[in-house]
Amino acid sequence: MKLESYVQGHWVAGADAGVSLRDATTGESIAVASSTGINFRDVLEYARRVGGSALRALTFHERAGRLKALGRALLENKEEFYALSYRTGATKSDSWVDIDGGIGTMLVFASKGTRELPNSRVFIDGAVEGLSKDGSFVGQHICVPLEGAAVHINAFNFPVWGMLEKLAPAIIAGVPVVVKPATATAYLAERVVRRIIALGILPEGALQLICGAVGDLLDHLTCQDVVSFTGSADTAARLKAHPTLLRESVRFMAETDSLNSSILAPDVTPDMPEFDLFIKEVVREMTAKAGQKCTAIRKALVPQRITAEVVKAMQAALGRVVMGDPRNAAVRMGPLASLGQREEVLARVAELREEATLISGDPEQYSVTGADRTQGAFVPPLLLLCNTPETAKAVHEVEAFGPVATIIPYVDIPEAVRFARRGNGSLVASVFSADETVITELVLGLAPFHGRIIVVNRHCAKESTGHGSPLAHLIHGGPGRAGGSEEMGGIRGVMHYLQRVAVQGSPDTLTAISGRWVRGGTLRTPDRHPFRLPFDALCLGDTFQSGERTVTIGDIESFAKLSGDTFYAHMSDTEAARNPLFGGRVAHGYFLISAAAGLFVDPDYGPVLGNYGLEHLRFVKPVKHGDRIKVRLTCKEKLLRPEKGWGEVSWDTEITNQINETVASYDVLTMVSVHAVPDARG
Amino acid sequence: MKLESYVQGHWVAGADAGVSLRDATTGESIAVASSTGINFRDVLEYARRVGGSALRALTFHERAGRLKALGRALLENKEEFYALSYRTGATKSDSWVDIDGGIGTMLVFASKGTRELPNSRVFIDGAVEGLSKDGSFVGQHICVPLEGAAVHINAFNFPVWGMLEKLAPAIIAGVPVVVKPATATAYLAERVVRRIIALGILPEGALQLICGAVGDLLDHLTCQDVVSFTGSADTAARLKAHPTLLRESVRFMAETDSLNSSILAPDVTPDMPEFDLFIKEVVREMTAKAGQKCTAIRKALVPQRITAEVVKAMQAALGRVVMGDPRNAAVRMGPLASLGQREEVLARVAELREEATLISGDPEQYSVTGADRTQGAFVPPLLLLCNTPETAKAVHEVEAFGPVATIIPYVDIPEAVRFARRGNGSLVASVFSADETVITELVLGLAPFHGRIIVVNRHCAKESTGHGSPLAHLIHGGPGRAGGSEEMGGIRGVMHYLQRVAVQGSPDTLTAISGRWVRGGTLRTPDRHPFRLPFDALCLGDTFQSGERTVTIGDIESFAKLSGDTFYAHMSDTEAARNPLFGGRVAHGYFLISAAAGLFVDPDYGPVLGNYGLEHLRFVKPVKHGDRIKVRLTCKEKLLRPEKGWGEVSWDTEITNQINETVASYDVLTMVSVHAVPDARG
Repeated sequence: MKLESYVQGHWVAGADAGVSLRDATTGESIAVASSTGINFRDVLEYARRVGGSALRALTFHERAGRLKALGRALLENKEEFYALSYRTGATKSDSWVDIDGGIGTMLVFASKGTRELPNSRVFIDGAVEGLSKDGSFVGQHICVPLEGAAVHINAFNFPVWGMLEKLAPAIIAGVPVVVKPATATAYLAERVVRRIIALGILPEGALQLICGAVGDLLDHLTCQDVVSFTGSADTAARLKAHPTLLRESVRFMAETDSLNSSILAPDVTPDMPEFDLFIKEVVREMTAKAGQKCTAIRKALVPQRITAEVVKAMQAALGRVVMGDPRNAAVRMGPLASLGQREEVLARVAELREEATLISGDPEQYSVTGADRTQGAFVPPLLLLCNTPETAKAVHEVEAFGPVATIIPYVDIPEAVRFARRGNGSLVASVFSADETVITELVLGLAPFHGRIIVVNRHCAKESTGHGSPLAHLIHGGPGRAGGSEEMGGIRGVMHYLQRVAVQGSPDTLTAISGRWVRGGTLRTPDRHPFRLPFDALCLGDTFQSGERTVTIGDIESFAKLSGDTFYAHMSDTEAARNPLFGGRVAHGYFLISAAAGLFVDPDYGPVLGNYGLEHLRFVKPVKHGDRIKVRLTCKEKLLRPEKGWGEVSWDTEITNQINETVASYDVLTMVSVHAVPDARG
Repeated sequence: MKLESYVQGHWVAGADAGVSLRDATTGESIAVASSTGINFRDVLEYARRVGGSALRALTFHERAGRLKALGRALLENKEEFYALSYRTGATKSDSWVDIDGGIGTMLVFASKGTRELPNSRVFIDGAVEGLSKDGSFVGQHICVPLEGAAVHINAFNFPVWGMLEKLAPAIIAGVPVVVKPATATAYLAERVVRRIIALGILPEGALQLICGAVGDLLDHLTCQDVVSFTGSADTAARLKAHPTLLRESVRFMAETDSLNSSILAPDVTPDMPEFDLFIKEVVREMTAKAGQKCTAIRKALVPQRITAEVVKAMQAALGRVVMGDPRNAAVRMGPLASLGQREEVLARVAELREEATLISGDPEQYSVTGADRTQGAFVPPLLLLCNTPETAKAVHEVEAFGPVATIIPYVDIPEAVRFARRGNGSLVASVFSADETVITELVLGLAPFHGRIIVVNRHCAKESTGHGSPLAHLIHGGPGRAGGSEEMGGIRGVMHYLQRVAVQGSPDTLTAISGRWVRGGTLRTPDRHPFRLPFDALCLGDTFQSGERTVTIGDIESFAKLSGDTFYAHMSDTEAARNPLFGGRVAHGYFLISAAAGLFVDPDYGPVLGNYGLEHLRFVKPVKHGDRIKVRLTCKEKLLRPEKGWGEVSWDTEITNQINETVASYDVLTMVSVHAVPDARG
């Protein structure tokens, strides 16, 4: 099989023989990969011109919708990916993390895109900034898609997840992607891309694939492009120093291997559930994907006084691990991805053994189930113990990217924190503890050096997603050695592909650009009550100004009685005068917003289906009996939910008194039908 | 005068003769600067050990408070800075931008820090992320200070503003600063630092100053340090490629010179106010600070059909500019900062003249007021016109960092956008237009290539802060040539000095770490109604659970009558049934939250001073007559305002029905006194 690249709308094979890729278990040749002959400048141009334009023509919601459809379709085709995944050395559960995990990540992004981004092309970032005394000049940050391409250079260990977790935020942002999978497992990534292209759900040009080397691609990057790299720190440093990246300030993200710690906290004794949870997690992290995870636990930090118990429990648990052909149901751990990786890992283990003792597993003596150990890239789980962690270097700096971890005893919390920090920046740390005080001290000590920290105890273990699992909701990345970047993290991950711009101008200007009405902007007067306008007929700025209502003692008394809220400040002038804020009896805030609704509501059946909430309600000034209130309601923001037949409309609302002082300010959230006369089906 | 550096708690002079600094107008020698002999590794260590520890012991509010005090004290001492500022070539109004502008920026940060950050040591970023079905495992991003030093390498043009705008966010974040001012105007920065140190408001070690070269300082940086650079793109690229920065993934921000455009939009005719505003702004940007601003207008894009009118108006306006000794009140424009800069600017102008015609000003023929033109670094305003902008290169790429701009005619909006984008990433663009449609097209076309866009017209001109003024509220920076970074932008600027960490665990764990109660966490039952507990006695999780109340038809009728809200869904079963959401007559949402207040309020005089608002109110499920509602109120977050004698307390509030379904969910915001029995003074 000759792997092909998908560029400029076509599948093309490399012009030369290329690199040979082999089954991790059997050594059998699977495919060859070459990108020779591809014009990389044209690939980038095609992405920008064809893919970028098509993506930017869609709204955030439309792009998220494409991803949702794509994710669902991939789930229906996942068996073909599983079949191929075995060849990488992955067991079924390893493949689940890669394939279902990757598709699931895409679906989380799709869902967050629909819930947390607007159904438009401009993302509004943060609040309006008042920049002048009279409000005629204001500022607003907006974010728009970069008009370049996202180049994703991925690692060999998770060919599906690693591709989809980067693809999803870029596509939602509106930026086309050029994927370059690690060559060793490119056949699986290629299969997934073939399926994606065949499905035709993404616009043409939104995704291109390069199987093989990327040639001079980086030379053609501009300030509108983004590079996201996963792999070794050395390669990351080399890429970052590329003259074009430096000259053009090309955005560069790196997620590199790091030495991650798991800490069994000093409050835990061997009889506590947290002890067992810790043992189980370290074993799982050593053996899942044969330890080829950038998030895997490399340093198991344990209280010195119970080191012997930890060692014993770990030895017992590791003794039960069956290694062999990942297709075999009895096998828990497969081979490494290639013989090259095996050599690399064993070399690193040799370095670690200069400072640490091997206490479980033997790189020379091991058995495999259902496979020929001379053909597969097998390395058994290797556990080391380092009794000189203060002076040791390798255990803090050398990563053996396989089923390898080192137990490191510590005496107290500051020492545990210090040892974990010696990773010099890590993707993740875990803490096993049942004591919130200990947890807080550990977590805040670890925090500046980590991108993610997971705390496991009896209360959350059942639902915990585990030390080694990055989640679409949370950032993935870490400082220093871990690459100094952040991926995912929900919408944070989308922001890497957007340009943030501070826009300054009049309220009307910012309303026009951002699609959100800005206070101080023109108040439009539609020809009827705005609650009688269906969604599409409503304009930003459409305003209802109410008449006045005098607040009486009777109102306050009646409201207190009906609500049951007899807080003293509403009930008695003398008592209220003791309060530093009111200086006398005041109306209930809840009464004010209720009366405001009475003033602004249009009671008859119509397009406004309901008020589903309020935001940012502030009672700015007390209202006393005899005060006269009125309310202004202005259409502030519209978000269509086309599949539902209605849209969300928020209304900037201000209650003022007889001398036009604001007494309350808030946003009223309503659902407004696209029909003038909606029916009970929506 | 021998400038000194302030390092490790002492003022030290360089060990050698150093560089000589000269008055920009008179050429007179002012001072010499040298950093020879300073041990830069020790400087960084001191910052981390002494300054960082002291700053991290304070809360965000306490640090902001220090900045506020510092800003106010500097304002009282500003005359000494003004006196020295003249020597840089700055006029009084140039100095106002630098000195008052710098101090004002610091004060905006202080104020935002107090309003937008918590009064604690951990910043909570974003919402809780549900990561499990039963809510026992959740995620929350928090941000904590980096434990390194911030190295600020500043430009010569704004020695005060450039220092303070970077200092403020770092200090608020809790990260100590090592300032390296550009040597040419280091005497002014040194004077300000002397004052800051003498004031003793910042903790020792929070600020160090290096006058002269930074030697091997960068070699000693770690993943906890930050470098923020302002200057040329070449230097930025060189610094970014430093092996230590690459190896340690040191955070690096660059704000570099860029070619910024101002666009006179095609809707504007010479008789419109926007025409005059444009002319005035271009002249101001050319002459303020003698055009030595990284945000200055270099390209004035004008509609081709009115080029002649623009040229004429510009020539007239520039003809009125008086250049000379900045101390002279008649003088509008001073000299450049140094003779070296003068040579540099004239060389760049020569390049521009290959493609553009000089239409105003003459680098050989000019007069100066109150100064000797042979001694000062004088360059008169030089305006060029380029009639071949499509084929020209220099006008889009060469920056003459002085009073120099080029008029570039365009034919339509897409062409204007294309010409502005050829800056390949700029800090700022401005648009002068009276047509919101034109504005929107221009702004969205410019957006991906800019960090800031200002739209000026008759509605906002009076209050506009101008094309060239970065503001503390808004990001300052731009893609590509502009450096690819963001400074300021309010709290966004503080984030550069914080490490974001995703923390996963049980709700109780996240409550303990973040200082904000998380739903699903333990509900504490204090020995009395929590409204009777003063601020300090309240604990996160303290909960009040109310009894039930049956909602009756009478309640709905009475509430409709009292509020005036007779929306059909509350008034008639038949009408309400037409609505797709309710399926029958429902209680008012405002009634529910009013009744909830009646259920949870403790009416007697006590520490709770008032309810100042609500957040995130959502009506989740309709309530019908006969339903029984109850409410849970849990102390969610506390923020002490020590100067006021009370704190802000938010309460996680949930109204449920008789089968424990949530019907409404919101945060109640209260002010709670630190006294059990507060008095009318607070």
